[in-house]
Amino acid sequence: MSESLQELEQEFLDYVKKISAFEEALSLVYWDLRTGAPEKGATQRSEVIGTLSGEIFKMKVSEEMAAFIAGLWVEKVNLSDVTRRSLEECKKEYDLNKKIPAKEYEAYTKLVAQAETIWTTARASNDYDLFKPYLEKIIASKRKFVEYWGYQENPYDTLLDQYEPGMTVAVLDDVFAKLREAILALRKKVEAASYQPDATLLHKKVSKAKQKEFSERILTKMGFDFEAGRLDDTVHPFATGLNIGDVRITTRYDEANFKMAVFGIIHEGGHAIYEQNISPKLVGTPLANGASMGIHESQSLFYEIILGSSFEFWQSNYKDFQEITAPVFDDVSVEEFYRAVNLSESSLIRIEADTLTYPLHIMIRYELEKAIMNGEIGVDELRDAWNDKYEAYLGVRPETDADGILQDIHWSGGDFGYFPSYALGYMYAAQLFATLSKEIPNVSEILASDDYSPIREWLTEHVHQYGMLKKPLEILTNTTGEGLNPDYLIQLLNDRYNFIYKLNEA
Amino acid sequence: MSESLQELEQEFLDYVKKISAFEEALSLVYWDLRTGAPEKGATQRSEVIGTLSGEIFKMKVSEEMAAFIAGLWVEKVNLSDVTRRSLEECKKEYDLNKKIPAKEYEAYTKLVAQAETIWTTARASNDYDLFKPYLEKIIASKRKFVEYWGYQENPYDTLLDQYEPGMTVAVLDDVFAKLREAILALRKKVEAASYQPDATLLHKKVSKAKQKEFSERILTKMGFDFEAGRLDDTVHPFATGLNIGDVRITTRYDEANFKMAVFGIIHEGGHAIYEQNISPKLVGTPLANGASMGIHESQSLFYEIILGSSFEFWQSNYKDFQEITAPVFDDVSVEEFYRAVNLSESSLIRIEADTLTYPLHIMIRYELEKAIMNGEIGVDELRDAWNDKYEAYLGVRPETDADGILQDIHWSGGDFGYFPSYALGYMYAAQLFATLSKEIPNVSEILASDDYSPIREWLTEHVHQYGMLKKPLEILTNTTGEGLNPDYLIQLLNDRYNFIYKLNEA
Repeated sequence: MSESLQELEQEFLDYVKKISAFEEALSLVYWDLRTGAPEKGATQRSEVIGTLSGEIFKMKVSEEMAAFIAGLWVEKVNLSDVTRRSLEECKKEYDLNKKIPAKEYEAYTKLVAQAETIWTTARASNDYDLFKPYLEKIIASKRKFVEYWGYQENPYDTLLDQYEPGMTVAVLDDVFAKLREAILALRKKVEAASYQPDATLLHKKVSKAKQKEFSERILTKMGFDFEAGRLDDTVHPFATGLNIGDVRITTRYDEANFKMAVFGIIHEGGHAIYEQNISPKLVGTPLANGASMGIHESQSLFYEIILGSSFEFWQSNYKDFQEITAPVFDDVSVEEFYRAVNLSESSLIRIEADTLTYPLHIMIRYELEKAIMNGEIGVDELRDAWNDKYEAYLGVRPETDADGILQDIHWSGGDFGYFPSYALGYMYAAQLFATLSKEIPNVSEILASDDYSPIREWLTEHVHQYGMLKKPLEILTNTTGEGLNPDYLIQLLNDRYNFIYKLNEA
Repeated sequence: MSESLQELEQEFLDYVKKISAFEEALSLVYWDLRTGAPEKGATQRSEVIGTLSGEIFKMKVSEEMAAFIAGLWVEKVNLSDVTRRSLEECKKEYDLNKKIPAKEYEAYTKLVAQAETIWTTARASNDYDLFKPYLEKIIASKRKFVEYWGYQENPYDTLLDQYEPGMTVAVLDDVFAKLREAILALRKKVEAASYQPDATLLHKKVSKAKQKEFSERILTKMGFDFEAGRLDDTVHPFATGLNIGDVRITTRYDEANFKMAVFGIIHEGGHAIYEQNISPKLVGTPLANGASMGIHESQSLFYEIILGSSFEFWQSNYKDFQEITAPVFDDVSVEEFYRAVNLSESSLIRIEADTLTYPLHIMIRYELEKAIMNGEIGVDELRDAWNDKYEAYLGVRPETDADGILQDIHWSGGDFGYFPSYALGYMYAAQLFATLSKEIPNVSEILASDDYSPIREWLTEHVHQYGMLKKPLEILTNTTGEGLNPDYLIQLLNDRYNFIYKLNEA
């Protein structure tokens, strides 16, 4: 009996290893398409994507997979941690797919494929009405799926759980309320401040080569392993872990906006360092990934926002930046520079938002998605609701759909429940940093040095190594001793913007 | 009945399309590994290679494939050209694999994997004796396989046919004898010539950027489509067609040897232009490849040797080269330059050989392989036989195994029968050029222009478009009106080296 369980376990591990191999090939195909594949090969390459995706999907919902789940689930307690958690993930995905009748799932797949194309056209022509019927169908499908999948308290919980296992409306309503209040209060002070940073500094010309040189130096300090990764150019920056020994990041350069690439690279570097440091024992299983979207984002934001946007960081690195870009910033002090890169301004577009306003963009989407999934709002009211919320939270009102409700691709792909991860990332990062600062008291000394490895090692010890072996809330609680707490982010924002806008100097 | 045949035909085409998709993904993985994949990802990437190769192999020898062959073979005459030729190729591969008992094939696969590693060590330590026992086993397996596969006149024919369908010992013995005699006679005159080109010109320093700039200009003139391909750096240059809209070439630069990259890029560009111009109707079938190794090589050599090493080519392009590399070649005339890049010299290493001596390197390998496969020579006599032949044909004798019998990787991988393709490529190219020169009388005018498209179009019309739809000898005969004829290459070599060594000026 015990021997036959071992055999079944091994067969299961071989099976998921094969899925991982197909997924790695697929990731490489996507990376290649987004970094320099010749245009004329794209049509045929989509056949490759179709074949590999099809194979992966087939394996995940196959009768073989059903047999593994049936055979191993009853023996869960006798399995290794890695097998058990892999099995749980496989079962979760199997159930998600199998609970929807095949025909409905197929129709939905076609719908979202069409909807993405329509969304692109609608955004380009500022025409929400064009997109509306598709959005309506997607919402109807998604609500029906939630019925198939089931839910406890709130239908939207089921969707949240797909991106952030364990996250609920009850938790988010609470933390977002606190965070919103704090941000709105701080925003008021910032807007009224007599000192305003010099935004023109952000548009001084810095060549691509110089932006790259500086960013690569920072990546190296952070602990990005160039023997286990690479940095390439792309249009829409991303990080992709092909395997833990090959994690690639990409960026876009604008010579009149150095901030985009420099902070973008630090951000993607944070994602990459996470995946480079997942435990080798998880390789070839579904666990060799980030614990959740929110935890993944917490790692990129830890480097971009917590460290990379701190004054200590720039005190240490500004000299290098000045030297590399000389003479452009010769007459700009580190304080002026620091305040400029961190200025806060209401804006319409989420992906261009600063640290302080970004969570507000997320809350708007969260509130709308929740209302949508609870049937409290229909597609006809959605545009006005969007615009009203922007006016209420950010004091700006979109004049076009492209600057408003059509700006994000997510809904066209049916990705409801994804947005909150971004804001969770901010809160997780601040909360982790508070614990790290207690356990490593000399963080500013580390930031003043050429080697940030104590920080990287701390993150690896508490977060990276586990991949998906632990669930997001488990990681947070084990590390910080408490559940999600927005106070750390609120404190950090207050301290930071008080300094930037000289709010205590009046 | 007819409808059911159509259905079966469609199922078969879908099946081979899926194989093609896996093959495309696998090619991308290899390209990536050879052009810049991070080192630490390589171990895990080999899992991907194993999974994809395994899937491809499984599909090619599956019961489904057997059923397609059984169902469609009897209906061959009612199939479209594309399906019929695809079926033939699938059947050929199916038979090759299925005729060997599975256990023997598996043992052989392991043997060659080991042998390649041993060969690397043996070459590095100049130790043929280390490699000998592996080579002996590979030869024994290969001879046994030939028995399984069967042969008509000569066991070696069966191996030749795998790389160059239809090629036989009877044909090769004849053409190689003529070619050898001509080359040896010409080599004698070249060695005795009072004029010798100035070899030092070949080692003038040219930066990588300049080599690249010039080569890309030539590629563009040749008709390489940069929207359907790209050029990257690598260690061992190659061309790879992922699909006809994405054909990638690679090169290596040595600043003290511009010839390597410049001619290497022209060579790989010839391979790539072939694949870029295969008919779209063959995409997704096994026919979207070169007709054979020899025909593929004929296209790279057509551009590298026939066009790119002609005096007309350099008369037209040398000015550009001088400008880009200025002032390095300012005081070198086009005649001096041309004679230097085409100088002929006996050497020990095949891949460093010049146009005139290269076929001799191939003949040595051909004669030894033929003897091996006919059991006329054993591994113990092989090193002496190799060295004796080098002395006889090239007048040089290897002092080490690395410069002799261990220089090529081919035998360690069991690739007997492959070498002749290279020499066939020379002969095919010269023969095709003779016909082209009749049909397009103003070739030198075209070479003097900025646009070589009439040449590219002629090659596409007669060679490229067909992919594997036609067999190599069919392509040659349809285009030139005769079978393989070494006289065209002999004539070209005589004309060229008479000019280079001023043999008629005495």
